[in-house]
Amino acid sequence: MPILVMKFGGTSVANIDRIQRAAKRVAVEVAKGYDVIVVVSAMSGETNKLVGYVSETSPLYDAREYDAVVASGENVTAGLMALRLQEMDIPARSWQGWQVPVRTTSAHSQARIEEIPTGNILRKFAEGMRVAVVAGFQGVSPEGRITTLGRGGSDTTAVAFAAAFGAERCDIYTDVDGVYTTDPRICDKARKLDRIAFEEMLELASLGAKVLQTRSVELAMRFGVRLRVLSSFEDNGETAGTLVCAEEDIVESNVVAGVAYSRDEAKMTLISVADRPGVASAIFGPLAEAGVNVDMIVQNISEDGRTDMTFSCPTDQVLRAEKAMQAAKESGAINFQELVADKGVAKVSVVGIGMRSHAGVAAQMFKALAAEGINIKVITTSEIKISVLIDRKYMELAVQALHDTFGLERAA
Amino acid sequence: MPILVMKFGGTSVANIDRIQRAAKRVAVEVAKGYDVIVVVSAMSGETNKLVGYVSETSPLYDAREYDAVVASGENVTAGLMALRLQEMDIPARSWQGWQVPVRTTSAHSQARIEEIPTGNILRKFAEGMRVAVVAGFQGVSPEGRITTLGRGGSDTTAVAFAAAFGAERCDIYTDVDGVYTTDPRICDKARKLDRIAFEEMLELASLGAKVLQTRSVELAMRFGVRLRVLSSFEDNGETAGTLVCAEEDIVESNVVAGVAYSRDEAKMTLISVADRPGVASAIFGPLAEAGVNVDMIVQNISEDGRTDMTFSCPTDQVLRAEKAMQAAKESGAINFQELVADKGVAKVSVVGIGMRSHAGVAAQMFKALAAEGINIKVITTSEIKISVLIDRKYMELAVQALHDTFGLERAA
Repeated sequence: MPILVMKFGGTSVANIDRIQRAAKRVAVEVAKGYDVIVVVSAMSGETNKLVGYVSETSPLYDAREYDAVVASGENVTAGLMALRLQEMDIPARSWQGWQVPVRTTSAHSQARIEEIPTGNILRKFAEGMRVAVVAGFQGVSPEGRITTLGRGGSDTTAVAFAAAFGAERCDIYTDVDGVYTTDPRICDKARKLDRIAFEEMLELASLGAKVLQTRSVELAMRFGVRLRVLSSFEDNGETAGTLVCAEEDIVESNVVAGVAYSRDEAKMTLISVADRPGVASAIFGPLAEAGVNVDMIVQNISEDGRTDMTFSCPTDQVLRAEKAMQAAKESGAINFQELVADKGVAKVSVVGIGMRSHAGVAAQMFKALAAEGINIKVITTSEIKISVLIDRKYMELAVQALHDTFGLERAA
Repeated sequence: MPILVMKFGGTSVANIDRIQRAAKRVAVEVAKGYDVIVVVSAMSGETNKLVGYVSETSPLYDAREYDAVVASGENVTAGLMALRLQEMDIPARSWQGWQVPVRTTSAHSQARIEEIPTGNILRKFAEGMRVAVVAGFQGVSPEGRITTLGRGGSDTTAVAFAAAFGAERCDIYTDVDGVYTTDPRICDKARKLDRIAFEEMLELASLGAKVLQTRSVELAMRFGVRLRVLSSFEDNGETAGTLVCAEEDIVESNVVAGVAYSRDEAKMTLISVADRPGVASAIFGPLAEAGVNVDMIVQNISEDGRTDMTFSCPTDQVLRAEKAMQAAKESGAINFQELVADKGVAKVSVVGIGMRSHAGVAAQMFKALAAEGINIKVITTSEIKISVLIDRKYMELAVQALHDTFGLERAA
């Protein structure tokens, strides 16, 4: 029988009632003839509670013990989901990561899945079992210890199972009904996309549209897994939600697929840095070591052998960045006159695979922002994305203006 | 280095603060030079919450899924305890049942431990680890599925580890400071015992003194594990708590070690049963199948080929017992005139290995009860125990009278 993977996030299994509703969705697919692999997250709030216990017990915790503790939330929902399905006379059982086993690297708290042997579960399907319920987010290291895949890791579990079992599709049930052209909370013309390309989804995910874990999209792209995002709180037809798929599967699309934003950005500028080979590494090496996630980097034109170096990072990492730069200056590793931090900026980006074949997107973007009187502080581009840093107070206006100028309220 | 097993029950690890206090007790033993195996229960309330989820999801649940769900509470405390010990610079790590592995039978929810391989943990001790934190209550079946050992099963886990590793002692930390001659809540002369024999402890445990799981005492007796019960809420010296040990290790003792009671008993009498071979089996077979825990059984003298059969069971099983007997009567399997249920009785017992060599204990017991005007309804005896059923309203009076007559307020 064809295999379907269905993943239910924390809000979709938040209590016994919701687990029951999720089980009913599974029953519908079983009735259609699918053997189903259900991947579950922990009940919403549960993982945060466990993480809180760990932090309270040991601020600088051993990641191996952290993993052993926080993975337990998914074990609970996996067992409950199997029980609920059995109540509906559907042959089902639960699997914890080590039982499959979901083999991962030893990088605790951010392990990567290396192998999912399919034998045990396929044997059970052959014996008449219809649903394998798998605890998401977790695996087992070569040393036999429990690992976790990082926040949102259950998405990655689902895609990895879909790839390993050659599933027809991987349905991600969540609390939104799909991927939107932009955040409907700040732009009322936002439109749900029927389809979006893997590459676009990757850019949107990394820009803060938190529908899917970035790694799960990478994995789906690599293995050609058809990924569907849909709501567990609405009735869904066959075409519900958003299908994340290969570029070739998208017949018509807008040049720009969506507008993303990231609110809590800071712009840091090192004034008058000596412009010599190795200076970038002398700056960004210490920042990386200090755990600062540097995003955009811009270097100004050099004058008299000195230059200004600008980078952006999340606002809550500004203090860390300042300390790292001060220490590097004191050690003599770098030399600069001043470090200026502007914590009042936001990032706005347009994303679309159509940009590859369509010139003038950047010009149109800048024109639309200028028409609203919005000053651009930093620009970076990639093949399918253009990002700008602007004053935070203009962020919503910028998103709306860009949504309008690229006509995103209408499908192509 | 010598090995010590320390077990902390649910109230002793109820929150992060208490886990920290328990860790300090472990640190004291590590400083003395012990390698320590710590067995932990789930935080108090956690297992009940999980059991509630299971019952709500599936009233007639699959015990394999039940086990997978409820065992997760112990995983959390095991990880947190290991983290806390690491914070105190004590090399420690957690083990879940399947990681040791604690091999059990496949009797889910009431599995028995069959084998605990010591290699993995001993190797870590040899490498410098000082504490192995083990999730109690759980194991793994020959089929590779998670099993649990029944309520209170962490006591059994602790004793089984002590036996497997040849531990010097197994300390059970709980919310009482030891085993008492009787319940201090109903007899203010109750005295903590310094030592008690395995056999006595077994009788007291099965009579409702819920300090230790019965099975853990059986296991300790079989393997000669020195078992100490002590409070995790008080400062304990070397001689704190109560040592449960072999008879030979008790130099002096009272004839009677303790007085136990069980409040919610019912006395059931089948009036005028045909007295023929096989009648007992025709009565108690259906009762066992209906899940009625029959305790005392008394058969009256036969008259004209008919007799009265009396048995006791917990009051909340009376309805079940009545249904089973009615069904057996209707099917013709047994024949009786009437079933009379007396739900207003209690059981009071005196227990002591001294009874073996000391006659007259029963006579003294009956005399003390008679002096208080307490009527005895049913009597049963074993080698080291005498139990009586009496009206529930006299229960506390009976316990006090027996405590007095056997001089239990003073040590031997």
